[in-house]
Amino acid sequence: MTARNTPPVGTPAGMRVLNQRAVLDRLRVGGPATRPQVAKDTGLSKPTVGQALLDLEQHGLVRSIGRTSAGPGRSAVVYEPNPAAGHVLGVDIGRQRIRVAVADLAGTVIARVDERNRCRSATALVRTVGELAERTVSEAGLSPADLVVKVVGTPGVPDPRDRTLHHAPNLPGWERPGLLDDLEAELGAGLVVENDANLAAVGEQAHGVARDADVFVCVTVGTGIGMGIVVDGRLFRGAHGAAGEVGYLPFTGQSEEDGRQRGQVEAAAAAESVVALAKQRGLSARSAREVFAAARAGDERALLAVRDEAERLAFVVASVVAVVDPELVVLGGGIGSNTDLLQEPLEAALRRMTPLVPRIVAGGLGDGAVLGGAIEIGLRSARELVFDRRGAVTP
Amino acid sequence: MTARNTPPVGTPAGMRVLNQRAVLDRLRVGGPATRPQVAKDTGLSKPTVGQALLDLEQHGLVRSIGRTSAGPGRSAVVYEPNPAAGHVLGVDIGRQRIRVAVADLAGTVIARVDERNRCRSATALVRTVGELAERTVSEAGLSPADLVVKVVGTPGVPDPRDRTLHHAPNLPGWERPGLLDDLEAELGAGLVVENDANLAAVGEQAHGVARDADVFVCVTVGTGIGMGIVVDGRLFRGAHGAAGEVGYLPFTGQSEEDGRQRGQVEAAAAAESVVALAKQRGLSARSAREVFAAARAGDERALLAVRDEAERLAFVVASVVAVVDPELVVLGGGIGSNTDLLQEPLEAALRRMTPLVPRIVAGGLGDGAVLGGAIEIGLRSARELVFDRRGAVTP
Repeated sequence: MTARNTPPVGTPAGMRVLNQRAVLDRLRVGGPATRPQVAKDTGLSKPTVGQALLDLEQHGLVRSIGRTSAGPGRSAVVYEPNPAAGHVLGVDIGRQRIRVAVADLAGTVIARVDERNRCRSATALVRTVGELAERTVSEAGLSPADLVVKVVGTPGVPDPRDRTLHHAPNLPGWERPGLLDDLEAELGAGLVVENDANLAAVGEQAHGVARDADVFVCVTVGTGIGMGIVVDGRLFRGAHGAAGEVGYLPFTGQSEEDGRQRGQVEAAAAAESVVALAKQRGLSARSAREVFAAARAGDERALLAVRDEAERLAFVVASVVAVVDPELVVLGGGIGSNTDLLQEPLEAALRRMTPLVPRIVAGGLGDGAVLGGAIEIGLRSARELVFDRRGAVTP
Repeated sequence: MTARNTPPVGTPAGMRVLNQRAVLDRLRVGGPATRPQVAKDTGLSKPTVGQALLDLEQHGLVRSIGRTSAGPGRSAVVYEPNPAAGHVLGVDIGRQRIRVAVADLAGTVIARVDERNRCRSATALVRTVGELAERTVSEAGLSPADLVVKVVGTPGVPDPRDRTLHHAPNLPGWERPGLLDDLEAELGAGLVVENDANLAAVGEQAHGVARDADVFVCVTVGTGIGMGIVVDGRLFRGAHGAAGEVGYLPFTGQSEEDGRQRGQVEAAAAAESVVALAKQRGLSARSAREVFAAARAGDERALLAVRDEAERLAFVVASVVAVVDPELVVLGGGIGSNTDLLQEPLEAALRRMTPLVPRIVAGGLGDGAVLGGAIEIGLRSARELVFDRRGAVTP
């Protein structure tokens, strides 16, 4: 990271930085505007705003997008934050798929890649992520240097102390020591690694169904089970980053080894278990997707398996609600997103086991929730960085 | 509540209030001090500090406790916050006992009453609490008007909207509509009603074993099961005040009616269940206390029942840890506090069911945790109120 380019407060150069900041913030929050509009909204004088816009334009942070035409008085230049002032990379590493996107500073996704994850080792997976990132950047017509921040979402708990991912049993070799360094070596500096379920919660909060929720959880059920918790609008990570690792909820009937390895609830209620539940009902299926498809086609055995799965998810939701008391439970992931089939039996099971029945909704971003959260977190940080890194202020 | 007695900021009277506040805060945080010491620590001039001390003394908020004798220079008057400037009442309403205490503004408990709860109706309980409060205030040599704040801890979730306590099945009639109003009618204005497990967490944070913990939970197991959650040093209540109602954790093998009424985990692991577990092992006991006593005396059946109970508590702790990831789990309550017997089998069971094994410690305040939390919350609020309510500033 480069040093912050901030002259001392109280000096003329310092004032100039503050003014640029105020003008840029106004354009980011309030949308495109003319110099007089910005002056009115910020309380700065028109010449001061003019100088700040000039500075920001020189640094590539603001651009003009035309002139006002309607209304009385002279026409004026309209400015907006320059979306091309920086770019962010978002990556969603899952057991089944790897998704990569590049977005500009306005949050517009310029290129997106979605590939099957066929990797059988951490080395292969790190390399594949690097290759897909390179391809996405190239498809976006950019070079790696244009990426201000990179955010990778993955199962597991990133530990900044030992630079290792813990509790990620579904990705072969992914818990190996120093994996965070390997990822950074592949993707370059400016890398943030975050739990995927946490990112899904951020995505649903920023652009999905949880926009108005102060306290909510986002339960992601797919190959594994994870949960992101948002409290007072902010991600809650717990004392060691393992908050929401609900795959480790104890669940009667699961083996102790499962408990310590994958987690008892994850063994009982993630994708594999849907196939197992279908088998118990006499239906042979290769994937959970097949079971849900059969249930939609009216197969009685599949419908019973889905009901069994819904009851296990009710156990998860009831547990979470007894601890967190969220105003909203968002369901997502390859399994969790089948709310057309799951929601009714899930809520019925909940009503039988607890008086605390929350509002439950399907995620609004589908399988793009983790990537959406990665981009969102990347943007928050990139918007600060591009301002801090802009060229020296003209004296 | 009286209106805040705060002149506009920027006026001389407003400045005088700010100075009094700064001087009082210095004495509260830093302990007794002389005028020059306060001036040095606050950055105010000695005459300003002298005037503020005079004002505060006139309002009864500060008192002199002697003169410095040692050291060079003239001796000076030493001031401290006046502990008698206000008092708080704390009440802990439990199924077994009712505890009441009165403390001065320094937090010193002046009188304390601890009685068996023999009430069989909400009406009787409200009246008994009122009588015990009156007796405690009288034993403290005070009158009801001396109480600035009253804090009542009780099982259940107080709902400020309908003025009713929800989820308090262990106290007969305690969920009746408008109970919070009944309590206020009995105890008078300035009443705060808070979940008892939340207060236990506040108590352990302020004066017990959780003083250094940023994210911790305090699990109270007695007649019922409750939990207080502290995040970033503050109580976390959830969206509807029901965070930590872990009695409602789903627990396989319990009836659905139990789940909706008492909660499945509460039915499986609170006091009554210890007696039931002992009976299953062939030991007839009238109370959980008897079972623990027999276990301490080496009774094999009691020891097995205690181990069974420890495994059920391990289920609770494992569930909480998978969701919250606390750095510390504090165990308290009539059952939970038997850590000499419970801790080892509890931790062993935890290690079998999850890789997330937290630090577990016995509460430091014993059966005084709820009352300690009630007094602590009362003090925080009372210290503000006595300042805001002090007489008009001398012109």
